[in-house]
Amino acid sequence: MASRSVRLAVIPGDGIGPEVVAEGLKVLDAVSGDLAFERTSYDLGAARWHRTGEVLPDSVLAELREQDVILLGAVGDPSVPSGTLERGLLLRTRFELDHYVNLRPVKLFPGVATALAGVTADDVDMVVVREGTEGPYTGVGGVLRKGTRHEVATQESVNTAFGVERVVRYAFEVAASRPRRHLTLVHKDNVLTFAGDLYQRVLKRVAEEYPQVTTAYCHVDAATMFFVSNPGRFDVIVTDNLFGDIITDLGAAIAGGIGLAASGNVNPDRTAPSMFEPVHGSAPDIAGQGKADPTATILSVAMLLDHIGEGDAARRVERAVSDDLAERAAFGERSTSQVGDAIAKRVSG
Amino acid sequence: MASRSVRLAVIPGDGIGPEVVAEGLKVLDAVSGDLAFERTSYDLGAARWHRTGEVLPDSVLAELREQDVILLGAVGDPSVPSGTLERGLLLRTRFELDHYVNLRPVKLFPGVATALAGVTADDVDMVVVREGTEGPYTGVGGVLRKGTRHEVATQESVNTAFGVERVVRYAFEVAASRPRRHLTLVHKDNVLTFAGDLYQRVLKRVAEEYPQVTTAYCHVDAATMFFVSNPGRFDVIVTDNLFGDIITDLGAAIAGGIGLAASGNVNPDRTAPSMFEPVHGSAPDIAGQGKADPTATILSVAMLLDHIGEGDAARRVERAVSDDLAERAAFGERSTSQVGDAIAKRVSG
Ligand SMILES: CC(C)[C@H](C(=O)O)[C@@H](O)C(=O)O
Ligand SMILES: CC(C)[C@H](C(=O)O)[C@@H](O)C(=O)O
Repeated sequence: MASRSVRLAVIPGDGIGPEVVAEGLKVLDAVSGDLAFERTSYDLGAARWHRTGEVLPDSVLAELREQDVILLGAVGDPSVPSGTLERGLLLRTRFELDHYVNLRPVKLFPGVATALAGVTADDVDMVVVREGTEGPYTGVGGVLRKGTRHEVATQESVNTAFGVERVVRYAFEVAASRPRRHLTLVHKDNVLTFAGDLYQRVLKRVAEEYPQVTTAYCHVDAATMFFVSNPGRFDVIVTDNLFGDIITDLGAAIAGGIGLAASGNVNPDRTAPSMFEPVHGSAPDIAGQGKADPTATILSVAMLLDHIGEGDAARRVERAVSDDLAERAAFGERSTSQVGDAIAKRVSG
Repeated sequence: MASRSVRLAVIPGDGIGPEVVAEGLKVLDAVSGDLAFERTSYDLGAARWHRTGEVLPDSVLAELREQDVILLGAVGDPSVPSGTLERGLLLRTRFELDHYVNLRPVKLFPGVATALAGVTADDVDMVVVREGTEGPYTGVGGVLRKGTRHEVATQESVNTAFGVERVVRYAFEVAASRPRRHLTLVHKDNVLTFAGDLYQRVLKRVAEEYPQVTTAYCHVDAATMFFVSNPGRFDVIVTDNLFGDIITDLGAAIAGGIGLAASGNVNPDRTAPSMFEPVHGSAPDIAGQGKADPTATILSVAMLLDHIGEGDAARRVERAVSDDLAERAAFGERSTSQVGDAIAKRVSG
């Protein structure tokens, strides 16, 4: 079998980022077989900003564009003004590489303790398809008379038929591929009437092409309630950038915690590389102590493998994670690298 | 003792609205003593819209303005286009009567089952102070090239120093009156940088006047996670209109469900009457069957009593509710009016 070569950009980032990325790569190595990853590591994040004042130089972005796929740990540090790295690095990457699908599974693995009473793994198995390139995340807005009693600060949510249709269509594809084939639009159309109405109309139109998929609508406020009281009602969710941000953190909380939540910033048209990352942040309070759970990064690696067409390898990683999670209660405390070792061993075994 | 007279506007509304309001009024009667409520009932909601096409005629709004306080059940029906009653009635009332504080306690009463594993009443006792008159709720925005492939739909969040400061100040007052004296700003300042920065600066400035209150900041996505994993970290929360909408529904879910969640749309300057209402909607699916839980409305009545300076009566209602809730597990199914009767009996007894 001819070996396949994949250009992989790695952005370890700040805090626990490098630690969890190391374990993700360990598992990637263990599962790779004939797959050869040409890795390039990019030093981006708080340290670089402090050193050089740069967040994401254009030249680095241009290099990233030439890669096949990107793995990111986490960026952010309290020493950097809020928003600098988030907007300048994470969001800039999502926007410039046209990651219009932010794919976030919310799945409770068997044996994992959940915060919800009386809920089992069967009840929590959904995929949130979050729009990634518009909505309230555009940065459009401004401030007038800053610092005075007459200050006005605005933020604009910009939504386009083009942008909404492509993410809705992707969500229908995901829904059509799953056993329940059910797609819920989460929005707030009774208040955000212009944007909500656009989403509703697009959903209705695209639904005609997917008669096998049933659809529903749920206000975002009610959705948070159902995540807690009846998560089983959701299969696939499509939602805007901000609502998706909020409900996927909540999703992580009900599916075993942020240590397990994986995500993909996906450009389905493959006009630029997609980027995979754990949902969690850089957690500077526990950085360097070997305490971080690398599972979210490892599951992000599985999503990465799926994206590059290596479904078998992805399934092996998922199974290894699932087996590890099922037995976790029996292990004592394990360090970041012990968890990585255990999962890597399972995928190679 | 001279009797005091209070002009009370009642808007029963749609679905279960009239049923729960009837029980709220029953309890109000039971607790009133020398307090005389001059009630006027306003027929607003889906039925009126169907009959006359009117949502909130200016003349009715003018009459409402002359009242001391308003009790609302719930409005909304699937037969009315989404947003019509919400924007035209609920939000219009909040904006026109300058209800800049949307006050929403999130409190788990002893004996009430919660959706969270291992959480007790001690862990869930917070007050969300939601801004009520600006943010993404202004209705500012629009649509261009509607229905075409080139459609653009915008929604604008408008935030003013005036609007933010008054709600932040109110939140500090609430925090200062509570034992823990802790105030958390919930926002998304790493993405919504203009609005988030305004909230942050105002919080910092007003905090100087309240040295006894400790403050913290939490992103809205992380806040939803903490609501589930560690609700005890919150005491008082101040947040914008949309984030407040979302986290208070989640708050209801962790504090015994939407059947118990009360709210006040408060004009603290008393330039217009405040309006009290359960957080839940009109629930047309269970309307007319005596199945609705009137507790949220009864707790809203307690908030109403507090607002008009009848703290003793408010405490009596709260105690009656608390006692009823503590024993609820022992009762079988009770109808809406049986619950109302039981609580009314306790307040008069
Ligand atoms: C860090 C922040 C900009 C980001 C977001 O809001 O999208 C994060 O919360 C996430 O969900 O990936
Ligand atoms: C009905 C709707 C307009 C309203 C809101 O979004 O404020 C409701 O959800 C609430 O929380 O009172």
